[in-house]
Amino acid sequence: MSLLTVGSVAFDALETPFGKTDKIIGGAATYITLSASYFTNKNNLVAVVGDDFPQEMITNLQERNINTEGLEIRKGEKTFFWSGKYHNDMNTRDTVEVQLNVMENFDPQIPESFQDCEFLMLGNTAPAIQKKVIERLRTRPKLIMIDTMNLWMDIALDDLKDVLKLVDVITINDEEARQLSGEYALVKAAAKIGEMGPKTVIIKKGEHGALLFHGGHIFFAPALPLEEVFDPTGAGDTFAGGFIGYLASTGDVSFANMKRGIIYGSAMASFCVEKFGVERLFELTTEEINQRIAQFVQLSAFELEV
Amino acid sequence: MSLLTVGSVAFDALETPFGKTDKIIGGAATYITLSASYFTNKNNLVAVVGDDFPQEMITNLQERNINTEGLEIRKGEKTFFWSGKYHNDMNTRDTVEVQLNVMENFDPQIPESFQDCEFLMLGNTAPAIQKKVIERLRTRPKLIMIDTMNLWMDIALDDLKDVLKLVDVITINDEEARQLSGEYALVKAAAKIGEMGPKTVIIKKGEHGALLFHGGHIFFAPALPLEEVFDPTGAGDTFAGGFIGYLASTGDVSFANMKRGIIYGSAMASFCVEKFGVERLFELTTEEINQRIAQFVQLSAFELEV
Repeated sequence: MSLLTVGSVAFDALETPFGKTDKIIGGAATYITLSASYFTNKNNLVAVVGDDFPQEMITNLQERNINTEGLEIRKGEKTFFWSGKYHNDMNTRDTVEVQLNVMENFDPQIPESFQDCEFLMLGNTAPAIQKKVIERLRTRPKLIMIDTMNLWMDIALDDLKDVLKLVDVITINDEEARQLSGEYALVKAAAKIGEMGPKTVIIKKGEHGALLFHGGHIFFAPALPLEEVFDPTGAGDTFAGGFIGYLASTGDVSFANMKRGIIYGSAMASFCVEKFGVERLFELTTEEINQRIAQFVQLSAFELEV
Repeated sequence: MSLLTVGSVAFDALETPFGKTDKIIGGAATYITLSASYFTNKNNLVAVVGDDFPQEMITNLQERNINTEGLEIRKGEKTFFWSGKYHNDMNTRDTVEVQLNVMENFDPQIPESFQDCEFLMLGNTAPAIQKKVIERLRTRPKLIMIDTMNLWMDIALDDLKDVLKLVDVITINDEEARQLSGEYALVKAAAKIGEMGPKTVIIKKGEHGALLFHGGHIFFAPALPLEEVFDPTGAGDTFAGGFIGYLASTGDVSFANMKRGIIYGSAMASFCVEKFGVERLFELTTEEINQRIAQFVQLSAFELEV
């Protein structure tokens, strides 16, 4: 089934203990759509960039079967830019610079051919924009998933609560889940967030894995213990893209299938961090993905009869 | 098969956001042996207390089939005392006071009837004492497991390295694994620690679960996401006791069985934190344990064919 991803396509400049990049391609929607492209070939993108965005990169996305008809290119304007520096533990980072540029008045237009999308992924942007996307779809998708961040809890909490009423799945990291719910224990946090709208709550714990809460059930997927994390940028978005891409490819939104989606998402995220930016997400093979999935099975499988 | 546990039996005074205790019974060996008592009834304890230690508590241990013949009671001396205060997140704590008392010159004597133990658990004490225990056993046990802490890395690193050469399994928390190995990534840390002696390395990550490294394989067990953590004291020891108690009850030290042991250990730890001190470890039923194990299976089971 078809997937529509809406969110940022950006330039990033990164510094990690392993090195430094110039402006490279980033943005939540870029990671999401690339990750999903390994699962579904009905992969539609709505985003905005400036005319400084390289045509070559758009071609690269198209070559991965991503439909870029909804990628607006604004003449005379500049692409959203973020630069960040990771600390030595790779778990924490400082934002060095943000230039909103075209994102300042992102007004997502949905091409007619995208109107029939069955899965909608709202990458992290202002909640009011996320809501606008839902309103502009004539038919409600089978599944709407949203990502957000602490910034919107600080400056646009009412908007965020508004859009949460309209979605099925939220991905959120542990600290953000605590902030949004006011609860420290993640079980309680997930329950409170579920009451705000999304029936399915996915709490991302980075190197500590992810928790899926749905209908009173809890599923936990570990992150793969890695020898090196080269660049964690986009890992959460890549996880979300693998998850919803897998759901879209199967058309199955049952809890059992969501568990599989979480494993696929975790596998994709484990590739993402191996190189700078989206580099790894352009070069994967099905065989590599299947091998990694097998590692996840090995990592968490045990046999025990009570 | 029989299990010998050597370590501290102590008084603790605890303060958590949920309340405060007077002197209650604690100590690594207490938690370990109580947890193991749900799996093996050949459960032998070597420890030392002062004559301020209540006979009632010794009787309670005996009623759980723990053989206390190796519990030395020193006349005119006081039991080891530790008091600590947990921060609001329950993950970090400050030591308020330590009185070593009888532990200052703990010289573990192995009763003749304990000489044939097949499983040996060395709870966290000075590495030189742990080594002495191994030397005092005429026959090497089938499996020797050790727990340690950062203190010994700071003040007795050579002793610690000495004893590590003699053991099969080490349990260690993530920060301590990083300190001991000098490696940040836990995969690398486990490999380095494995080179120091123990073929099996278990890294405890508290609320983030535990990793088992053995023969190039990795297994990950989540911690149960809990609504309330009442008192985390002893959770790591309870985990270790459940693990080695299960191994001793089955006599099976294969990787597949160690994975089951990790799940049993995690289940026992999830009970431990529900009340202050060892309270919960005196009142469990087999049915409760089996129900909790079923929760662990649900939490991490998924079906996925590649």
